[in-house]
Amino acid sequence: MPKIAGIVLIGNEILSGKIEDANAAYLCRELRVLGVDVRRITVVPDDVDVIAREVAAFSRDYDVVFTSGGVGPTHDDVTIAAVARAMNVPVVRHPDLVALLERYYKGALNDAKLKMSEIPAGAELLADDGLGFPTILVRNVYVLPGVPEIFRKKFEALRERFRDQPFHLSNVFVRIGEGSLAEYLNALLAEFPSLLLGSYPEFSNPEYRVKVTLESKDRDYLEQARARLLERLPGDAVVKVT
Amino acid sequence: MPKIAGIVLIGNEILSGKIEDANAAYLCRELRVLGVDVRRITVVPDDVDVIAREVAAFSRDYDVVFTSGGVGPTHDDVTIAAVARAMNVPVVRHPDLVALLERYYKGALNDAKLKMSEIPAGAELLADDGLGFPTILVRNVYVLPGVPEIFRKKFEALRERFRDQPFHLSNVFVRIGEGSLAEYLNALLAEFPSLLLGSYPEFSNPEYRVKVTLESKDRDYLEQARARLLERLPGDAVVKVT
Repeated sequence: MPKIAGIVLIGNEILSGKIEDANAAYLCRELRVLGVDVRRITVVPDDVDVIAREVAAFSRDYDVVFTSGGVGPTHDDVTIAAVARAMNVPVVRHPDLVALLERYYKGALNDAKLKMSEIPAGAELLADDGLGFPTILVRNVYVLPGVPEIFRKKFEALRERFRDQPFHLSNVFVRIGEGSLAEYLNALLAEFPSLLLGSYPEFSNPEYRVKVTLESKDRDYLEQARARLLERLPGDAVVKVT
Repeated sequence: MPKIAGIVLIGNEILSGKIEDANAAYLCRELRVLGVDVRRITVVPDDVDVIAREVAAFSRDYDVVFTSGGVGPTHDDVTIAAVARAMNVPVVRHPDLVALLERYYKGALNDAKLKMSEIPAGAELLADDGLGFPTILVRNVYVLPGVPEIFRKKFEALRERFRDQPFHLSNVFVRIGEGSLAEYLNALLAEFPSLLLGSYPEFSNPEYRVKVTLESKDRDYLEQARARLLERLPGDAVVKVT
């Protein structure tokens, strides 16, 4: 069974169209390369109860969960409180984080700054990311910041934790429409039921009409399926295979 | 109460990182301008049961729901079946759509092509979009295609249906960090609890450190809140107000 993941994006700014999220697409691409199967993405507002329910469900349903956003010092940063509620543990100040913030701010900390020393009780601090501030891991939930540059650096530092058997992918580009192609794909799936098969029409590309994606973690299975598809398709239907 | 909306994006291609969705961000921006409050976005795979559960929950929880993707003729296009299951109605072929497809394909239709004449029983066809193919509306669920150009044209044709009281927005850009800013924002919210207040740090912009967004459907309330914030902030903290 491949490792499966869920992504929880947190932030009114995404839902209200102020900011276009870049973290989910980045994470989907990176996790796919690592062989991890992302099963769901959800975008929720800065609301403790809503986030807590979603994180609890994701933590139960998926092997690994990533949250993005809501980890700063202001009123709309409620992710830590929500993850703690999801896990049914209190929020506590971690002395190492307090010390780190004191060095960063060079002096006394107000409540807002101290908020960034808070973690769900029992959380693990993953400190080897070369970024000065550790990543918080609560059971299978990685709490990441929304700022894309920091999100990526933190993920980069963690990525080898998630590596699994890779997906093998082949693309077949055809010049027939989906309405004609469908029967070939159905026949292929009948013979190769475990194949991950996608069909993506292209309406503005003069070169081809549909990109067919074939994927499997078993390279032989993938190659057999692709050979069978190419054998069955009309000879002039195929534009290219990658 | 503002009109609230949910968005369900359907497609393995998004979750597997092959395609970056553009429809949710577009829809969030457009709906915000119309005064509609998007409360949640979810991205789910091409799985009838998963989509059906999500659509049923969204249809119950939100005033209006948009689905994106999964409406073509191939095996991975399961949105119509899923929406029908969510609404507990059968899938039926609509004679107008069969006639339309016969004209489009200029002749006999195979099962795959006929699949595009299928709708959840009782669905409404919204035909005035100038695109040749109507949009399917099932109760409060608008079924839209994943291809961004068509998604946008269809939404454009429908947009006046969703217009509500607008949100008024003002941005205050400051050169103090969130750790110092937080107390001003907390005080502001204590006095203006209905204000929609966001705080977005910027780490690579030399001009300002945080963008504060103030929003309300009540313009006077917004202007009073902004005046109070500007009055309280240290004079040299504010870079600009828009």
